[in-house]
Amino acid sequence: MADYTPPLRDMRFVYHELLGCDDLAELPGFEEFTADLIDPILEEAGKICAEVLHPINRSGDEEGCRLENGVVRTPAGFPEAYRQFREGGWTAITCDPEYGGQGLPAAADVLVTEMICSANLSFGMYPGLSHGAYLALHSHGSEELKRAYLPKLVDGTWSGTMCLTEPHCGTDLGLLRTKAEPQDDGSFRVTGTKIFISAGEHDLTENIIHLVLARLPDAPKGSRGISLFVVPKFLPTAEGTPGERNGVMCSSIEHKMGIKASSTCVMNFDEAQGWLVGAPHKGLQAMFTMMNNERLAVGGQGLGLAEAAYQGSVAYARERLQGRSLTGTKAPDKPADPIIVHPDVRRMLLLQRAATEGCRAMAVWVAKELDKQERHPEPEVRKASEDFVALMTPIVKALFTDLGFENANLGMQVLGGHGYIREHGMEQYVRDARITQIYEGTNGIQALDLVGRKLGANGGRYLRRFFHPVAEYIEGHAETPEMAPYIAPLAKAFGRLQTATGTVAQRGLANPDEAGAAATDYMRLFGLTALGYLWARMAETAMAKSRESGDADGFYAAKQVTARFYMERVLPQTGALLSQIMAGGQTLMALDEAAF
Amino acid sequence: MADYTPPLRDMRFVYHELLGCDDLAELPGFEEFTADLIDPILEEAGKICAEVLHPINRSGDEEGCRLENGVVRTPAGFPEAYRQFREGGWTAITCDPEYGGQGLPAAADVLVTEMICSANLSFGMYPGLSHGAYLALHSHGSEELKRAYLPKLVDGTWSGTMCLTEPHCGTDLGLLRTKAEPQDDGSFRVTGTKIFISAGEHDLTENIIHLVLARLPDAPKGSRGISLFVVPKFLPTAEGTPGERNGVMCSSIEHKMGIKASSTCVMNFDEAQGWLVGAPHKGLQAMFTMMNNERLAVGGQGLGLAEAAYQGSVAYARERLQGRSLTGTKAPDKPADPIIVHPDVRRMLLLQRAATEGCRAMAVWVAKELDKQERHPEPEVRKASEDFVALMTPIVKALFTDLGFENANLGMQVLGGHGYIREHGMEQYVRDARITQIYEGTNGIQALDLVGRKLGANGGRYLRRFFHPVAEYIEGHAETPEMAPYIAPLAKAFGRLQTATGTVAQRGLANPDEAGAAATDYMRLFGLTALGYLWARMAETAMAKSRESGDADGFYAAKQVTARFYMERVLPQTGALLSQIMAGGQTLMALDEAAF
Repeated sequence: MADYTPPLRDMRFVYHELLGCDDLAELPGFEEFTADLIDPILEEAGKICAEVLHPINRSGDEEGCRLENGVVRTPAGFPEAYRQFREGGWTAITCDPEYGGQGLPAAADVLVTEMICSANLSFGMYPGLSHGAYLALHSHGSEELKRAYLPKLVDGTWSGTMCLTEPHCGTDLGLLRTKAEPQDDGSFRVTGTKIFISAGEHDLTENIIHLVLARLPDAPKGSRGISLFVVPKFLPTAEGTPGERNGVMCSSIEHKMGIKASSTCVMNFDEAQGWLVGAPHKGLQAMFTMMNNERLAVGGQGLGLAEAAYQGSVAYARERLQGRSLTGTKAPDKPADPIIVHPDVRRMLLLQRAATEGCRAMAVWVAKELDKQERHPEPEVRKASEDFVALMTPIVKALFTDLGFENANLGMQVLGGHGYIREHGMEQYVRDARITQIYEGTNGIQALDLVGRKLGANGGRYLRRFFHPVAEYIEGHAETPEMAPYIAPLAKAFGRLQTATGTVAQRGLANPDEAGAAATDYMRLFGLTALGYLWARMAETAMAKSRESGDADGFYAAKQVTARFYMERVLPQTGALLSQIMAGGQTLMALDEAAF
Repeated sequence: MADYTPPLRDMRFVYHELLGCDDLAELPGFEEFTADLIDPILEEAGKICAEVLHPINRSGDEEGCRLENGVVRTPAGFPEAYRQFREGGWTAITCDPEYGGQGLPAAADVLVTEMICSANLSFGMYPGLSHGAYLALHSHGSEELKRAYLPKLVDGTWSGTMCLTEPHCGTDLGLLRTKAEPQDDGSFRVTGTKIFISAGEHDLTENIIHLVLARLPDAPKGSRGISLFVVPKFLPTAEGTPGERNGVMCSSIEHKMGIKASSTCVMNFDEAQGWLVGAPHKGLQAMFTMMNNERLAVGGQGLGLAEAAYQGSVAYARERLQGRSLTGTKAPDKPADPIIVHPDVRRMLLLQRAATEGCRAMAVWVAKELDKQERHPEPEVRKASEDFVALMTPIVKALFTDLGFENANLGMQVLGGHGYIREHGMEQYVRDARITQIYEGTNGIQALDLVGRKLGANGGRYLRRFFHPVAEYIEGHAETPEMAPYIAPLAKAFGRLQTATGTVAQRGLANPDEAGAAATDYMRLFGLTALGYLWARMAETAMAKSRESGDADGFYAAKQVTARFYMERVLPQTGALLSQIMAGGQTLMALDEAAF
C-alpha cells in the first residue's frame, strides 16, 4: 500500500491564499483561529492520519468487522487507534466549547475530514456518525438531554448513530414503521427494525447513543408524522456513567462491497427506552439539520479518497518501468521509462489532480460560508451564507463523491493489473468510494434536491448566491489578457449553465418529470462550472502569489498547468451536458414499464 | 440475486433481422448454420447459462478459489458445472471440426460468450483462456503438436492458459526474462516466473496446457527475441493421457477485487519441458493471433455484464416501492410507486439498455466480418473484412468493457444501498467488470493501438472500412424523413469523428505524444459514433419490420425509443470529446515528473 502524505501545502494555499479564511478569526468565537493556530492543527491532524489511521486501513479492510453474541468487534488496531484519536481531542475539534469542544471553523474542519477519509474511511465513519448525532442533539435537544449526552459525544467516550432506514424505506422515510409509545415518566418505548446503521454497534466506545426516527401513536401518516428520539445503548446513570442495558440490539451486520471495517448494522429496538428530541412529528426536520451536515461530510469523504487515489497513482507511475516514451528514451539508465512519461498516463493523473484540488477549494469555500452562516454578526450576511450553503450542499455531496469514485478508478487504471489485486490498496479505494455516491441520499436524490428545492425556490434567491459572484468575476476579468485562457472557457460553461437553468426551471414548472429528467445532468453541469470558477481563481491567485514571492518549489506553476488542463480537458463536458438536458424528458417517459 | 434471462429476442433481432447473418450459411464450412440451427443453439446455450452457471455465480464469488499444496480448488459446484458444460459440447462450438469442433460462426459464438459472461464471468474464464490456447496452437503449432493437444482442448478434458506477464513486465513484454534452453530431443527446458495467469491451476480438467512466452539463449533483446512454447502440466503419454508431472507449479493465487472464482496464479516454471510453437523469436506475433481473439472475447465479457446489470436493475426498479411519481400517484393500491416511475431511474435504465443493445449489435457486426475474413471465397472480401476486424478490435475491447463497468455502476445506483451489499449480486458485477478494462491490454493500450497502429496505417485503409459504409449510410438516408431523428445526430457525431481523425493523424505524425494525448478520447469518440450508426440502423430495421409484420409485443417500438434516447442522451458526448482532443497534448506534457 502506498504511503499517505497529508497535502498540507495545497491546504494552506486554499485556506490562506485562495479563500482568505484567516479573516474568519474576526468572527465571534473564532478569535484564536489565526494562521499560527490553523497550520499546526492541520499538521497534527495529518500526523495522526498518516501514522495511526492509514497503517490500519488495508488490514481493517481484510479483517472486517465481526458480530459475536450481539457485540461487534472492529478490526485489530481500531480500538487503540480510536483511543489515540479521542485522547488527541479529534472528536471534539468542531464542537461547541460549552460542552468541551474546541470550536474549530468548518473551513478548517473539512480539511481534517479530508485527511481522515484519505487515511481510513472506515475508521472515519465512527466519529463521523457520532458528530451527526451530536449536531442533532445540539440543535434540537432539551437542555437536559444536551447535558446528559453532549459532553460524552464531544470527548468521544460515547459515540452516536443515525437510525433512519428500514428494510422497506430508505429515500421515502414517509413509509417508516418504527413506533414510539409514550410512558408515564415522559420517556418513550421504541420498537422497530432499522437497517444500514453505520457504527450501530462496535467496541470503540463505552456507550452508543442512537438517534432514531419513529412514529408516535397519534402520528399523521407519511413524512409529517415522524419524530426523533434519542435511545442510548446503556441508560446513563445519575453520575453520567453507562447504566442498565437498553432494549436495542444489533442482530446482524451487512456484508458489503467496501468500508468493511465500518460496522453496518441491522438494529432491533424492542421497547427500548428513548426520549423525544425536538417537537413531536417534527423529527424529519430535526434530522435534516444533521443530514445537511452529513452530506457535506460525505463530500469530504469523496475528496479524501480522490486525494488518496491520486497519491497512489503518482507513486506507481513514477516507479513502474514499462515501455519507452514515444518521443525517445527518457531514462536511458533503466530497462524502460517510468510510465509517467506517457501522455495517456499523465491525462489520468491530471484528471485526478484537477478533481482533487478543485474539490478541496470548493469544500473550503462552502465551509467558510457555513462558518459565516453560524457566526457572522450581520443577519443579512448570515442569510446569504445560509442560502449559498443550502444551494451547494447537494452539489458538494454528489460531485465530490462521483469524482472520488472516478479518481479511484483512474488510479486503478494507472496501476493496471496491480491495481486489481489487493496488495496496493487501490482496489479498496474503489470499493470504499462507491458507497459515498449512495448513502446520505443517493446522488440522484441530491440532483432532485438541487432542481426541486433549490433551483426555483424563493424566486431564484439561492441561485443568485452563486450566479452573481461568478458573473461578476467573469466580467471583472474579461479584459485581463493573462486570464484569457481561463475566463473564456469558464464564460462558455457558465453560459451553458444559465441556459440550462432557465430551461429546466421553465419546463419543470409545466411538468415536474422534466425537472427529474434533467436533474443529474444539470447537477453535473453546475458542479463542473463551479469547479471551473474555482480553477480560474486558483490560476489567478497562483499568478499573483508567484509574482509576489516567487515560485521556488514550482507549486504555483503546477497550479496554472492544472487549471489549463481543467479548462481544456474537463470543462468541455458541459457542452454535452447542456445538449442532454435540452433533449428533455419525453423519450425517458415513452416506454411502458413492461417494455423495459 | 436476480435471475438471468437470456435475451434471445434481441439476439435474434441482431443476428437475423439487423445484420442478416443467415447469409453466413453461404460460406464454405457454414452450410448447416441456417436460422433453424442457430436459434436452438442460442436457446440451449441460454439454458445452461441460466440454469447451471448463473446459480453458482454468487456462491463462487463468496467462496473463491483456494490453493492447497499446489492444487487450486475452485468453488463448490464449479467442477460439476464444468462437466455439464464440457459434455454439452460448449468447449467445442467454434472449434475446427477436424479436431472435434462444431465450427459455429463467430457471429453466433459472440452471443454464446455474452450469455456465459452474463451468467458467470469467473466460470467463463476457464473455457475462455483455453480457447485462446487452442487458437495459438491451431494457427502456429506443428502438425504433431496439434494432434497431441487440440482434440483434448476442443473436447474440454484438458484446458489451456496464456503465460505472458511477469512481475516486472505486463504491457512491455520486451522486458521478459523467462528462459528456454534447447534440449537434444528437440524440446526445451523453460524456467521463470509468470504472474496473473488466469486458470493457471484448477481442478476442472485432467491436464492444463500452458502457452508460455520465453527467450531462447540466442534471442535478440527486446520484443523481437521472444518465442512461444507449449508446456503441459502433465506430459502427454503416447496414448494421449496425462503422464509424468512437468516442472510447473502454482506457487500462490492472487487476492483480487473480483472474478474470485477464477484462479489467478503465480506460475513457477522450473526446467519445465516445453515445445516451440511457430518460429523462434516470433512468439509475440503468434501470441497476437490469440490476443486479438481474446480482446474481442473480453469485449463480450463487458457486454455480458452490461446485460446482467441491466436485468438486475430493471427487476429492482419494478419491485422497489419508494416515493410517488412527481406527476401523480401511479400505483394507488400500493404504499408507494415502483421507482421505475421516476425519470432519473429511467435515465439510468435506458443508459444501460442503449449500451447493452448497441454493443450486442456491434459484437455481431464485427464477428460476422471475422467469419468472412476466415471463410469468404474471394480474397479481396477476406482482406476487407480482416482490415475491418483489425480496426474494430481495440474499440470492441475498450468500449464494451468501459460500458460494462458503467452499466454495473448504474445498476448499483438504481439499487441504492441494497446494491452495495452482497445480497443482490450487483456489487459483484461492479467488481467483476472492473478487470475487463485492464486485462488483455488496458483500455489505454487499446486506444494506443487504435491511434498508433490502425489510424494512419496503410494510408488509412483500415479506417476506410468503417468510414465509407457510414458515410454512404448517412448520405443514403439524408432524404428519408422518418430517419431524420437518427441521421442528423449521427451525421454530427460522424463529422466530429472525421475532424478528430484528420487532426490526430496530422499532429501524431509531427509528434507521437500528440497521438498518445488524444488516444483515449479518440477511441471513445469512435466507439460512440459506431454505436450511433448501429442505433440508426436498428431504428430503421425496427420500423421496417414493424410495418412488415406488426409489433405485437412492442419490441420494435421499444427499439426506436431506445435509439432516440441514444441520440439525445449519449451521442452528445462526442462534442465534448472532440473539444478535448482538439486541445492537444501540450498541457499534459507541461509538468515535470517531480511536480505531480
